[in-house]
Amino acid sequence: MGSERPATTRRQMLTRIGILAGSAGLYQAMTSMGHAMGTDFRGAPELKGARKGTRVIVLGAGLAGMLAAYELRKAGYSVKILEYQNRAGGRNITLRGGDTVTELGGHTQKVGFAPGNYINPGPWRIPYHHQALLHYCNAFGVALEPFIELNHNTWLHSTKAFGGKPVRYREYASDFFGYTAELLSKAINQHKLDDVVSAEEQKHVLESMRGWAGLTDTNAWAKGDRSSLRRGFEKPQGGGPDGAPVPSDLLPRGEVMASGMWRNIAFHERLDMQTTMFQPVGGMDNIGKGFARQVQDLITLNCKVSAIHQDDHGVKVTYADMAHGGAMKTEEAEFCVCTIPLPVLSQLDVQVSGKMKEAISAVPYASSVKLGLEFRRRFWEQDDRIYGGVSFTDQPISQISYPSAGIFTKGPGVLLGGYMFGPAAYDFAGMTPQERVEEGIRQGLKIHPQYRKEFLNGVGFAWSRMPWTLGCCSMWSEQARKQHYGTLTSMDNRIVLAGEHASYVGCWQEGAVLSSLAAITALHKRAAGGA
Amino acid sequence: MGSERPATTRRQMLTRIGILAGSAGLYQAMTSMGHAMGTDFRGAPELKGARKGTRVIVLGAGLAGMLAAYELRKAGYSVKILEYQNRAGGRNITLRGGDTVTELGGHTQKVGFAPGNYINPGPWRIPYHHQALLHYCNAFGVALEPFIELNHNTWLHSTKAFGGKPVRYREYASDFFGYTAELLSKAINQHKLDDVVSAEEQKHVLESMRGWAGLTDTNAWAKGDRSSLRRGFEKPQGGGPDGAPVPSDLLPRGEVMASGMWRNIAFHERLDMQTTMFQPVGGMDNIGKGFARQVQDLITLNCKVSAIHQDDHGVKVTYADMAHGGAMKTEEAEFCVCTIPLPVLSQLDVQVSGKMKEAISAVPYASSVKLGLEFRRRFWEQDDRIYGGVSFTDQPISQISYPSAGIFTKGPGVLLGGYMFGPAAYDFAGMTPQERVEEGIRQGLKIHPQYRKEFLNGVGFAWSRMPWTLGCCSMWSEQARKQHYGTLTSMDNRIVLAGEHASYVGCWQEGAVLSSLAAITALHKRAAGGA
Repeated sequence: MGSERPATTRRQMLTRIGILAGSAGLYQAMTSMGHAMGTDFRGAPELKGARKGTRVIVLGAGLAGMLAAYELRKAGYSVKILEYQNRAGGRNITLRGGDTVTELGGHTQKVGFAPGNYINPGPWRIPYHHQALLHYCNAFGVALEPFIELNHNTWLHSTKAFGGKPVRYREYASDFFGYTAELLSKAINQHKLDDVVSAEEQKHVLESMRGWAGLTDTNAWAKGDRSSLRRGFEKPQGGGPDGAPVPSDLLPRGEVMASGMWRNIAFHERLDMQTTMFQPVGGMDNIGKGFARQVQDLITLNCKVSAIHQDDHGVKVTYADMAHGGAMKTEEAEFCVCTIPLPVLSQLDVQVSGKMKEAISAVPYASSVKLGLEFRRRFWEQDDRIYGGVSFTDQPISQISYPSAGIFTKGPGVLLGGYMFGPAAYDFAGMTPQERVEEGIRQGLKIHPQYRKEFLNGVGFAWSRMPWTLGCCSMWSEQARKQHYGTLTSMDNRIVLAGEHASYVGCWQEGAVLSSLAAITALHKRAAGGA
Repeated sequence: MGSERPATTRRQMLTRIGILAGSAGLYQAMTSMGHAMGTDFRGAPELKGARKGTRVIVLGAGLAGMLAAYELRKAGYSVKILEYQNRAGGRNITLRGGDTVTELGGHTQKVGFAPGNYINPGPWRIPYHHQALLHYCNAFGVALEPFIELNHNTWLHSTKAFGGKPVRYREYASDFFGYTAELLSKAINQHKLDDVVSAEEQKHVLESMRGWAGLTDTNAWAKGDRSSLRRGFEKPQGGGPDGAPVPSDLLPRGEVMASGMWRNIAFHERLDMQTTMFQPVGGMDNIGKGFARQVQDLITLNCKVSAIHQDDHGVKVTYADMAHGGAMKTEEAEFCVCTIPLPVLSQLDVQVSGKMKEAISAVPYASSVKLGLEFRRRFWEQDDRIYGGVSFTDQPISQISYPSAGIFTKGPGVLLGGYMFGPAAYDFAGMTPQERVEEGIRQGLKIHPQYRKEFLNGVGFAWSRMPWTLGCCSMWSEQARKQHYGTLTSMDNRIVLAGEHASYVGCWQEGAVLSSLAAITALHKRAAGGA
């Protein structure tokens, strides 16, 4: 079970380097090898010694499936991919003007965006440490550009704080840091923490608080140039005789602490959301297209799998060929990599162990809805001076994200008008597409009064209504992880599962890619060991 | 004196809106008009009713001078620009392969960068709130792209902390926030702050600290998944059977507080350094070129001004025409906009009031040195997974900044190998160019062991050795500002000064632009009022 995984190997190598080079050498080796780097990827797998022509059937032409096919074919396997949709890419999707979205329930939306505008209803950003995905993007010629996640000038909005008026991220964050530093300084100065902080360290803590948060010389967070040089001035610094700035008022401490908006600061400190992030130039589906270019000839589209059977000799997949009137067909192979999302897979006739069946049914999928709204002009840039990044609200739409590409361009722009996860996603999925968009506008107006006047058209994408995935992505509970993850990620005789659900990087493309590499490594080992 | 400046006007307008629309309307108006927006720019000046053909001579073809000429000509003035250098742009410079840098002392450097690579020895980034500069970039067709300033994966290095080994920004910042939140939580929990924080607020503060910093349920900063989901795991989250992550060790609290590295967190919270920042595509001098395209026909290069005289009828400028053997020439006009940097201006024969002479001599200029180092490959991306942003060190080089453009490209890359301000800048300016580069490598090796092996060539740009500016930019003391700023920014009969030194946005291009607009507004008022 995965004894070739790098953890042990790496530790052994580090021990050897440590002995040879001493601890300084060890440190350098650790840092240059990926220690504390946030990536579990150290290059494409080397699948040596495959029996040429061993057949593998891959179910699903998402990133996990296409990558499995790509690497297995390279190793000498004979691979076929069956895909449910009439396109490759899986959840890696971009919607542009002219595209249609048909969902369970019968609604069809036609996207009305202007040429060049798009929205990514699925994955939309790539953290710097998702090195497996970045590696294949580069290998497959997918151009990337920075994705702006943190933006100090976006709005934070709560219906329950500051009179329901949005405040700038920089105003709130500066005040939150300032009050935090001031309070800790007070405790230190009044000798309230002498039991836990030595006299020497107290000096350091006071200096740290003052410098980090921009406190006054007496460690207070107060209105003045020093605080305004972070939160922004009431009258900004200018030129000429009247150039002197006027400091801005602080938000009251009680409301700052009670507002819960510190969540929006914490958000950007999460490993998954830290800078630098990336996006493919022109839309996320350029990744799917890049992967598809490698394995196009292996993919059969419009295959609705109904059964996956196996015995000691091989795997047999039964599917309806939707491109030919739904005719039932079968496909046989020695092995199968199955990337079908679990909510769909759990409803099929799959011949695996009882434990695997339990595992497949044990992982609920998040519902998620995204709204793409197109406006006549980029008023968020022109009026609000917001260039990329995210505004947050405690309303169900949760966030408004501004495009990182095309900044400063004239003409219509598209923003992410809402990103619902959890209960709000179920509410929005229950609406008609028009209602979703209207609700997005209604809530967005609290942050951007320009919304109604500038609105052109919109699209509301509900993941729970996509028949080929029935949800957005896997939501492992700790309990389910303990009980079922080992089973779910192990080969079940001739079948191995892959996809973000078979990883610890759930809901990210990186999880799909890493799980795919783990799956084919296991498959290859099993195949080499004899059938 | 600047009575047309917008502060009053804006306040009057807000009062009117407040009366009409109530306080909610007032708030919306304030936010959409620029309140707390960090910009003092509300559009190009409207200089109406100029007497056509009134002559203005502009000294200096930097951004301030070129903008003054552009707007004055538009208003009907007859404008000429005299420039010292053999190029327009002033301190807005980009160095590329084949360029030469000649400095006081006689050293000439020939830049050896590969095609496409460059370094900006002067300004190199544009904050989102520098709206005047952004406005003219857009008006003059200068393409901009995001400049990555904050990057959680860069290195922080101190010779006095953590055994002299660099730590990742995310590791340090997470631990600094964690310990800060933990200490404040302790003070609250032990009822040490009951006098300043009410019982109700205590609840909010505890929740804030826990959520903001990622503390445990009992408000401790501890090794575990929660802390590693910010600072990074020892073994990252992966896919397949062996995908479980292993948490990383924390840095010790005492060293975190004593290290002073909180300065590097605070740096990114400064209004000037907040996201989103921009840079011109292809090099900062594309701004200078964009401005120059507008006024090219007005510029005479290679003019070394020696005297600026004025009387009741006009201004007479005497200069050596360096393109013609240094022949002394004169140029006359009704008015003069002088953008000559103060260290140079203070040495010329300038006919202004005694108070203005004092003001011109009252502002010291920062010395500054920047190193551009070219390496065989982008090892900071390929080995260290650093894409843009800044690593900090307590060594004299102070910082290493990674290019925001060309990320993921193969081939040689150029980084900013040092940015010295203050005493370190004098030390580096005192070295030969080769010594500067060698010293940059020697210090950089503490952070990037790949430096020596991958080094190709470098350039060290010392601002104090540029004869046309004799320093990097103005360093106003509070005292000097009180005594001299009003004088320096007022018209002295027929002469008005402009440049970053005549602004509260010192050392930034925005200051040059805003001061230029203020200067020509004052000049126009004076001209309209009669000579």
